[in-house]
Amino acid sequence: MARRARSPRQHLEGGIAQPSPFIRRKLPYFDPLSPEELEKIEAQVDWLLENVGFAFRDDPQALEIWRKAGVTPSGEHGDLIRADAKWVRGLCAKAPSQFVQHARNPERSVTIGGDNQVFAPVYGSPFVRDLEGGRRYATFSDFEKLVKLTYMHPNLHHGSLVIAEPTDLPVSKRHLDMVLAHMTLSDKPHLGAITEKSRAQDTVDMVEILFGAERMERDVCIMANVNTNSPLLVDRVVTEAIQVYCGRGQAIIVTPFILTGAMGPVSTAAGIAQAMAEVMICCAFAQLVRPGAPFVMGNFLSSMSLKSGAPTFGMPEPVLSNYAIGQLARRLGLPLRCGGSLTASKIEDAQAAYESADSMHSTVLAGSNFTLHAAGWLEGGLSTGFEKLIMDADRLGGYQKLFGLGLETDDNAFARDAYAEVQPGGHFLGSGHTMRNYQTAFYEPKLSDSENVESWEEGGSMDMRHRAFLRWNEMLRHYEPPALDAAKAEELAAYVARRKNELPDAWY
Amino acid sequence: MARRARSPRQHLEGGIAQPSPFIRRKLPYFDPLSPEELEKIEAQVDWLLENVGFAFRDDPQALEIWRKAGVTPSGEHGDLIRADAKWVRGLCAKAPSQFVQHARNPERSVTIGGDNQVFAPVYGSPFVRDLEGGRRYATFSDFEKLVKLTYMHPNLHHGSLVIAEPTDLPVSKRHLDMVLAHMTLSDKPHLGAITEKSRAQDTVDMVEILFGAERMERDVCIMANVNTNSPLLVDRVVTEAIQVYCGRGQAIIVTPFILTGAMGPVSTAAGIAQAMAEVMICCAFAQLVRPGAPFVMGNFLSSMSLKSGAPTFGMPEPVLSNYAIGQLARRLGLPLRCGGSLTASKIEDAQAAYESADSMHSTVLAGSNFTLHAAGWLEGGLSTGFEKLIMDADRLGGYQKLFGLGLETDDNAFARDAYAEVQPGGHFLGSGHTMRNYQTAFYEPKLSDSENVESWEEGGSMDMRHRAFLRWNEMLRHYEPPALDAAKAEELAAYVARRKNELPDAWY
Repeated sequence: MARRARSPRQHLEGGIAQPSPFIRRKLPYFDPLSPEELEKIEAQVDWLLENVGFAFRDDPQALEIWRKAGVTPSGEHGDLIRADAKWVRGLCAKAPSQFVQHARNPERSVTIGGDNQVFAPVYGSPFVRDLEGGRRYATFSDFEKLVKLTYMHPNLHHGSLVIAEPTDLPVSKRHLDMVLAHMTLSDKPHLGAITEKSRAQDTVDMVEILFGAERMERDVCIMANVNTNSPLLVDRVVTEAIQVYCGRGQAIIVTPFILTGAMGPVSTAAGIAQAMAEVMICCAFAQLVRPGAPFVMGNFLSSMSLKSGAPTFGMPEPVLSNYAIGQLARRLGLPLRCGGSLTASKIEDAQAAYESADSMHSTVLAGSNFTLHAAGWLEGGLSTGFEKLIMDADRLGGYQKLFGLGLETDDNAFARDAYAEVQPGGHFLGSGHTMRNYQTAFYEPKLSDSENVESWEEGGSMDMRHRAFLRWNEMLRHYEPPALDAAKAEELAAYVARRKNELPDAWY
Repeated sequence: MARRARSPRQHLEGGIAQPSPFIRRKLPYFDPLSPEELEKIEAQVDWLLENVGFAFRDDPQALEIWRKAGVTPSGEHGDLIRADAKWVRGLCAKAPSQFVQHARNPERSVTIGGDNQVFAPVYGSPFVRDLEGGRRYATFSDFEKLVKLTYMHPNLHHGSLVIAEPTDLPVSKRHLDMVLAHMTLSDKPHLGAITEKSRAQDTVDMVEILFGAERMERDVCIMANVNTNSPLLVDRVVTEAIQVYCGRGQAIIVTPFILTGAMGPVSTAAGIAQAMAEVMICCAFAQLVRPGAPFVMGNFLSSMSLKSGAPTFGMPEPVLSNYAIGQLARRLGLPLRCGGSLTASKIEDAQAAYESADSMHSTVLAGSNFTLHAAGWLEGGLSTGFEKLIMDADRLGGYQKLFGLGLETDDNAFARDAYAEVQPGGHFLGSGHTMRNYQTAFYEPKLSDSENVESWEEGGSMDMRHRAFLRWNEMLRHYEPPALDAAKAEELAAYVARRKNELPDAWY
């Protein structure tokens, strides 16, 4: 993997050269919590499941599924689900601990779960920002560029879905354009639409065109990400998405977004337990819809500024949450999704990088199997940065080298022959061992400048943001779409055209 | 500790309010290597000790110490030391696994070793950089400001020594001014001078004035940091510093700086083993000078740009080295020093922050007991950044919260009472639990902006660098020197005046 990331001409020849489909982790996880601490959290999870409960709101079908399983909804609205914790854990155990999400290009299929780590870019920002255009509402043209860059970048393994919201397209139709763009401009795996049942269904129908109905029975060809309405509320966006995707044997990620102090108690341990409980009740529901449905446990705990109440990122509390939830997810046997290179900064400055690095580092150490927002996130998720996307992705290659390769300890790695050539105080630059090994010895990010100050000044004193701007523009000039069967392309286009014709233009 | 870092008026009232003297670590280390991998590295260390050897150059007294211990120097220059590995390990075992470096203010004394982590700023840059003055040769005026800022910052526990080189003072005398500045402008512990035997002796003499001869027999009141001349060369700067400092029962850090591919083979495993071996032979030497001498194992492995041959920082290879050396240091029972917030960037941009964060994160996970360069490092160590110092130090508070506090799992942390107050889909902002706990729930770095984009733009669209510039200038306006006994201050000043009179002005 490391070798691949180092070819100087990569992603400048059209398409992508020798990508790493995902990280197969060789180093262990960072597991800071003791079994006793984990058991305390699990006891709180069980207490929430059995005594507090979760409102499954506005979806009578969902309540019917619970009733059929012997759980009678209760509470003020008649939609509160409380369930025996052991039974819930038993249902969660039906979900696979890992599965493959197939890409239309088999070389880009990713394994979600186990010791594998998959990186996907940001999801859901209404704004974009770049050095030339500044901050603005995202358009479909921005969206297409972001899909192309994600396709071309060797350190991004998965396409996410809404890399930015194409706000110039009607809300009622833009899911069709987005899914079609991922399917045609890229051949990496991506996520499916949610927000309305029919949009999820449109995605599944388009995936069926691309992969065929038979493949969909056998394989996971699409996955979707939904958020609970924390605290303790599971609305129809979640339950309908589970029914549509899991109903067809496809995968779902359910992610509570808990800003501790607002959507959960102002305590890291309580936030972790609540996140686990919300995910587990949804996983149980998914297993009732279809036993064995591939399910990914999502985690998005955030801290808060005491000055403004705004979410903060890359802080010690969410970092610790990631570590803890990694351990808990492995005890539960479920694949884990964490947030990635997160920041509250408005621009691609040092704050953005410090926060993103610390946040991302913790997701990797925690063993997050699917890391959404691994690149491009700015401004608490309100804005997708073109430079930020390329800067973050550049750093992700370091994780591929570190966790995907580990430490080599064979005879060549110990280089005993080199010591016969070099005297005390001498240097190894020209030694046989150096000549044989230097080309693969180091991961060198493309956007890090290690020149001396004079050379850097001669080159225009460019900061990383500037270099990233030049790089993504250069990448786009070399973009070539991946091959796609003409009949399938036509069928997909016809489907989208028909559905757009059927649907009204709605802007909210 | 977390609570202390959050007081809004801290370091604005003159001096420093409620600092954390150092981090007492509650979370475990990240130990990614297996015992088998560690044993392979240790076998290479032993091979280097017994078969390759180390030149102890230009110090006949050092060779005499080896001869007295039964080791006959060999090799072309008659100064090559090869020794039985078991014997060397036995000598290293005489060094304490932890010790206190006493500060003149006892509240600021730091414990080096064990589960403790101490952060010190950058050491040795000839240049400084700030937003207003740009990059320039450092002066004594810069140096004084940096000592004051380090003194005032609650997240820096130790003063380092040469936070920047005061290049406007003669080389032959500047050590006197630097040591005096640390002793009078700050009451935090700091390092002593090296480079020449007499300069080390001047430091020890000044420490004796400050602490008294009796204290120095009993306690570690000063520590110094020296670098081997990797590969495999230990010059008189190292051996003389060991003789002066350890000879008086004071502490020494010996740090190989190995740019793998130049000062060591182009392999991470070989670099780690060489670093260990160079340190261990120096530790053995220190124990021959004085059995039980406090000794800190230094580590500074760096990767290299294939484009320029320049060192690179925050990359996966040195990150892995830190993890590995942390494990090896604990097996050896020696305190560990690692490099901190390192970067090759020329300015305080995203590159600087990504690299610094990833580098620093690994030293903390590795359990580095004394982290030099934890704040302020720019340009591969050629330049000290005023903004960088404050930006890095701001982030260090997160480690104090994360590793010094760990996860709270008492009844209050699980907040069961709060769930009785909040409905599904509601919020915890006004719950009793939130009201009781919000003030201590989160670490909030002072330089991270989490406002929305409109407020941020109204505030002038300042990036982190700008905010750091304002902050360090504000801090300096509130600086007040810590109290110092007038007689001691006078005696120190007289010592410096006398020595300056005795020494010639030399500029190289």
